[in-house]
Amino acid sequence: MHFTTESSADGVTQRHFTLDGAPGVLWQPDGSPLGGRPLVLLGHGGGQHKLGPGLVDRARRFVRRHGFAAVALDAPGHGERTRSAQDERFATEIGELIAAGRPVSAWVARHTAALAERAVPEWVAVLDALSGEAERTGRTEGPGQAERPGRVEDPGHAEGLGPIGYWGLSLGSAIGIPLAAAEPRVAVAVFGLTGHASQAEAAGRVGVPVEFLLQWDDALVPREGALALFGALGSREKTLHANPGGHLEVPEPELESSERFLARHLIRAGASAAPA
Amino acid sequence: MHFTTESSADGVTQRHFTLDGAPGVLWQPDGSPLGGRPLVLLGHGGGQHKLGPGLVDRARRFVRRHGFAAVALDAPGHGERTRSAQDERFATEIGELIAAGRPVSAWVARHTAALAERAVPEWVAVLDALSGEAERTGRTEGPGQAERPGRVEDPGHAEGLGPIGYWGLSLGSAIGIPLAAAEPRVAVAVFGLTGHASQAEAAGRVGVPVEFLLQWDDALVPREGALALFGALGSREKTLHANPGGHLEVPEPELESSERFLARHLIRAGASAAPA
Repeated sequence: MHFTTESSADGVTQRHFTLDGAPGVLWQPDGSPLGGRPLVLLGHGGGQHKLGPGLVDRARRFVRRHGFAAVALDAPGHGERTRSAQDERFATEIGELIAAGRPVSAWVARHTAALAERAVPEWVAVLDALSGEAERTGRTEGPGQAERPGRVEDPGHAEGLGPIGYWGLSLGSAIGIPLAAAEPRVAVAVFGLTGHASQAEAAGRVGVPVEFLLQWDDALVPREGALALFGALGSREKTLHANPGGHLEVPEPELESSERFLARHLIRAGASAAPA
Repeated sequence: MHFTTESSADGVTQRHFTLDGAPGVLWQPDGSPLGGRPLVLLGHGGGQHKLGPGLVDRARRFVRRHGFAAVALDAPGHGERTRSAQDERFATEIGELIAAGRPVSAWVARHTAALAERAVPEWVAVLDALSGEAERTGRTEGPGQAERPGRVEDPGHAEGLGPIGYWGLSLGSAIGIPLAAAEPRVAVAVFGLTGHASQAEAAGRVGVPVEFLLQWDDALVPREGALALFGALGSREKTLHANPGGHLEVPEPELESSERFLARHLIRAGASAAPA
């Protein structure tokens, strides 16, 4: 993991990095190490990137409101990354399908599944690298732990990452669902705006609490497919929130609710995992 | 409206009444009149009654947390009310259907529609009576209004009820949906655990914000029917929250979320309706 630029604003440090060719951004509270701190993985939507609209605000809210760290990666073929011939072909063809008024969901599912195959190992590598970073830099008092009686602060104590959550809709879910299925370090997730039969098998292997957002009038994701994907999630604790409107019209209060859902579970996981 | 017994506990006054033969209960903050105060109508589920489990706690939370008033009625054939031959026949027949493992949703829809035809005019009469009660007893500083600058408290000022919300699941929705369709004083509603094609017409005439709760594994309400009913609601602002589990297994955090939804809209409606 190679850190390049670093900046700070309003108490939030933003550090750019690359890992095996994947460019990413890490946000954390100014002057505080990663160790023991909850970490939110932020997956962006299709055509977006690691610094896209909404994503940076969300990352900064997690840091400022809860003291979490957050990290985003450019998905393959997105943001600063070069687009393969396949990526270029997809961008052309989906535009043609939409212009012709033809259904795109199967097309999107096939392409995003191919992206997920490349993206999941990248996220796993980022978790490995950030775990090493956390152990190297030690910890300070983390959120939700200040009230533990008798705790002695030990900034030099080597410790891995705190509990990890994933937040990502649309392409962010197409990548996040197989990631959560494969990666036991992900403890809670927000998914949504996706749903194709090809995702059901991975969804069945997800066992962590999930909040799933569905847009009732989503022209890109058939309602039945999204409902079936929610049903396929293996999680005992899962909740579906559906609202009127199109793919890009998730109501702001619903997005805020999803952030509270993730934060609540991460704080709970951190409290139960904290050493006595 | 004939008030009978009155009691008080923890700052909440509970008054029993009857109106045209329908027994009801009114909750409000001790020593405070109704005028200008948000009012929550609480519809109970099938086989339950106005003082059933959950309902009283919910009423008391609205009073204690938000300073609202709340009111519940025994639905026709429920609680203290005598059961008609039709009510008795239904109770027998639905038991036989369930015992035989046969689908009950059409049966339930037909019976609850008949109950709603009797219950909706009773709720309208209660609103009329409570409006008169509010005008008769005047008002004090209501919730969400203390911060209005320059407001002079005028306890003797005649004023009707504040904004009105409806909270009711299952039978409570079978009654609440046609009530909200017919009664323009209802400004926001929580519905759920119901869904039959026969309810779609009334749902289409509901225009207020609605939170709709659905249980994914509800043996009494087919999932497709509940989803279609949510889709049929005419409200521009509506949100569906679905969770795993059966008809009686709505997660407690979801119930609390629905109370916050109702309270948020009632406080907003009260603020915008308040005289300058």
